[in-house]
Amino acid sequence: MSVISLLSDFGSVYPAQMKGVILNIDPTAVLIDITHDIPPQDIAAGAFALMITIPYFPKGTIHLAVVDPGVGTNRRPVLVESGGHLLVGPDNGLLIPAAYRLSQDILVREITNRDMILTVSSTFHGRDIFAPVTAHLSNGLKPSDIGDEIEDYVKHDFAPPQVKDKKVLAQVIFIDGFGNLITNITGEQMLNSFKYGDKLAALGVTMPLVYTYAQVGRGEMLMLIGSHGYLEISINSGNAAAQLGLGIGDQLWLSTHQ
Amino acid sequence: MSVISLLSDFGSVYPAQMKGVILNIDPTAVLIDITHDIPPQDIAAGAFALMITIPYFPKGTIHLAVVDPGVGTNRRPVLVESGGHLLVGPDNGLLIPAAYRLSQDILVREITNRDMILTVSSTFHGRDIFAPVTAHLSNGLKPSDIGDEIEDYVKHDFAPPQVKDKKVLAQVIFIDGFGNLITNITGEQMLNSFKYGDKLAALGVTMPLVYTYAQVGRGEMLMLIGSHGYLEISINSGNAAAQLGLGIGDQLWLSTHQ
Amino acid sequence: MSVISLLSDFGSVYPAQMKGVILNIDPTAVLIDITHDIPPQDIAAGAFALMITIPYFPKGTIHLAVVDPGVGTNRRPVLVESGGHLLVGPDNGLLIPAAYRLSQDILVREITNRDMILTVSSTFHGRDIFAPVTAHLSNGLKPSDIGDEIEDYVKHDFAPPQVKDKKVLAQVIFIDGFGNLITNITGEQMLNSFKYGDKLAALGVTMPLVYTYAQVGRGEMLMLIGSHGYLEISINSGNAAAQLGLGIGDQLWLSTHQ
Repeated sequence: MSVISLLSDFGSVYPAQMKGVILNIDPTAVLIDITHDIPPQDIAAGAFALMITIPYFPKGTIHLAVVDPGVGTNRRPVLVESGGHLLVGPDNGLLIPAAYRLSQDILVREITNRDMILTVSSTFHGRDIFAPVTAHLSNGLKPSDIGDEIEDYVKHDFAPPQVKDKKVLAQVIFIDGFGNLITNITGEQMLNSFKYGDKLAALGVTMPLVYTYAQVGRGEMLMLIGSHGYLEISINSGNAAAQLGLGIGDQLWLSTHQ
Repeated sequence: MSVISLLSDFGSVYPAQMKGVILNIDPTAVLIDITHDIPPQDIAAGAFALMITIPYFPKGTIHLAVVDPGVGTNRRPVLVESGGHLLVGPDNGLLIPAAYRLSQDILVREITNRDMILTVSSTFHGRDIFAPVTAHLSNGLKPSDIGDEIEDYVKHDFAPPQVKDKKVLAQVIFIDGFGNLITNITGEQMLNSFKYGDKLAALGVTMPLVYTYAQVGRGEMLMLIGSHGYLEISINSGNAAAQLGLGIGDQLWLSTHQ
Repeated sequence: MSVISLLSDFGSVYPAQMKGVILNIDPTAVLIDITHDIPPQDIAAGAFALMITIPYFPKGTIHLAVVDPGVGTNRRPVLVESGGHLLVGPDNGLLIPAAYRLSQDILVREITNRDMILTVSSTFHGRDIFAPVTAHLSNGLKPSDIGDEIEDYVKHDFAPPQVKDKKVLAQVIFIDGFGNLITNITGEQMLNSFKYGDKLAALGVTMPLVYTYAQVGRGEMLMLIGSHGYLEISINSGNAAAQLGLGIGDQLWLSTHQ
């Protein structure tokens, strides 16, 4: 009995097709959704959500992740082994930050063994390739039976923030369900330049670096290092993304308020 | 231990009430959501989502589906047997296309045995009738103990596209999470009139019939035969429904571009 | 093997982190989402959704609920025992109406035993405190090992409707996925002042008190006592909240139409 996590940009209906395929092959699998609401085709947002989530799952979990704008092209399917977890999905960088978060020692295989695959559509490899591979791994198929190691897999890394004088250029890399703007600045990087209690200027507003939301009044802006380990810009009991009109990929300068 | 799939237009909260009822009766049931985001009261959209999804589930799965504008009226509750699957829901056509997709040999029963049902509200038969019936079937109750066969059940079929000269009149029957417009033209029907590589005119735009999204540039329109077997109109890395302002039920003419 | 229900205002991704934590501690737990779409920080809406749902779950279920604007402050974590169920979450009133719905005899404990807790962020106690406590309870840890009873827990009650002459002042306390406006008037209170078939005036419109939606024409307004036991204002096959522009907390007068 394996735990299988699922992440995609499919919304609803299509994830259930993957689950049906898996349960046909391994009726004992325990299926847990991470999300199916990744913004369509946003590989970086999917990679971030996967990276911050799978470390909480037990060793032995198989993670099936599909954000796949290149489906049906010569984009390769891959299996990644890291830290006792397996990750299955497209070779477009989606799986790599999560694999490195589990362990620096990762092994990437191209999925070339298609014995377990019946028919393959040109638009839904999540259902036709990744789901059956995941289920057969859950049933005990060995990774080495899936395909050989490759070195030239597609990498993805979140661009590090730029530091210039005492200013830091951050980029929004994820927006959570509260509208919190999660940036590419790690907690460690942030505390190299600033300290808790500092008043920081960003987006034409001054806001404090605090530990939790309720340290400022309702509706006031704040920065904190989120539970995911990255700096986020938030509004206490408000939606920062909606109120500021910012989205994934937008950049902003941070500096100590003078 | 049965797999039970669930489909509805309930959004959240109410599906959990159905799941609680089921787990009270069969604590070993494996509950898998297909979707609860069918557009409210849209029986045809629910029928389509059910039809394209349940063939991927194992034999023995029980499918509980509720899109039920007639709840509390004299609309009958039904159980459908088809291809080793069971389907439970309202007699309004919702279950029928899915049942026929599994097998041409279907058997429909009116649910008349209410021994297992405690109290019935006038607005939530999903929780008060369909969920307990589903759970008792999961526990081994025989379909023949649920009620007798009926012949006059409500049918639903997706209107076939109209072909006139070399033009085809299509109708949008579903919109997926990417905003792809899924039409009532099956792949077979499409390839009777057109071929891959054709440039087709629709909605005042010319677009090719291709195999996968990435065969056109980002933001460009295309047609393909989706993994569900129907023609869809899409924008590579875009949302066709939002950009074109089309919804379920809208019609459009397709023709070869001159 | 325990059933664990989950409710929050987290949207997606973060609930999966809680599930990973739980499955690490109790791999046999059966995880059922009630919803993660409670409006952000809306404790009353969360309390209502929890209250109307958990009575349908089996005895022995553990309910993990987190709507937690005071996370990281001195807000206490609590465990509530009621009617053979356990409820885990913040001490802000969220759990109390649901606990009283199960039984009038409830016992609230402050969670002070942190032996099972590894590290605690200042912003995600759902993952760092409530999830591991829930999982250890699922594994058999006794409530009395979690902490001592407290009497001064935060209460929450839905304000009763005001009755003045023959008018009733109602408040919207929840909006469901159909846009039905669910008010704070219980069925019993409603039938004290009015009867089925009455034409009622509210919001400048006259509408009947009926048993089910299809008793009025499509697009027409109605009132009924919903399956949750409260008066709701609805539009047959329409979205009352969107059409009327009403939200949670809005008030309206009801009276018999003259």
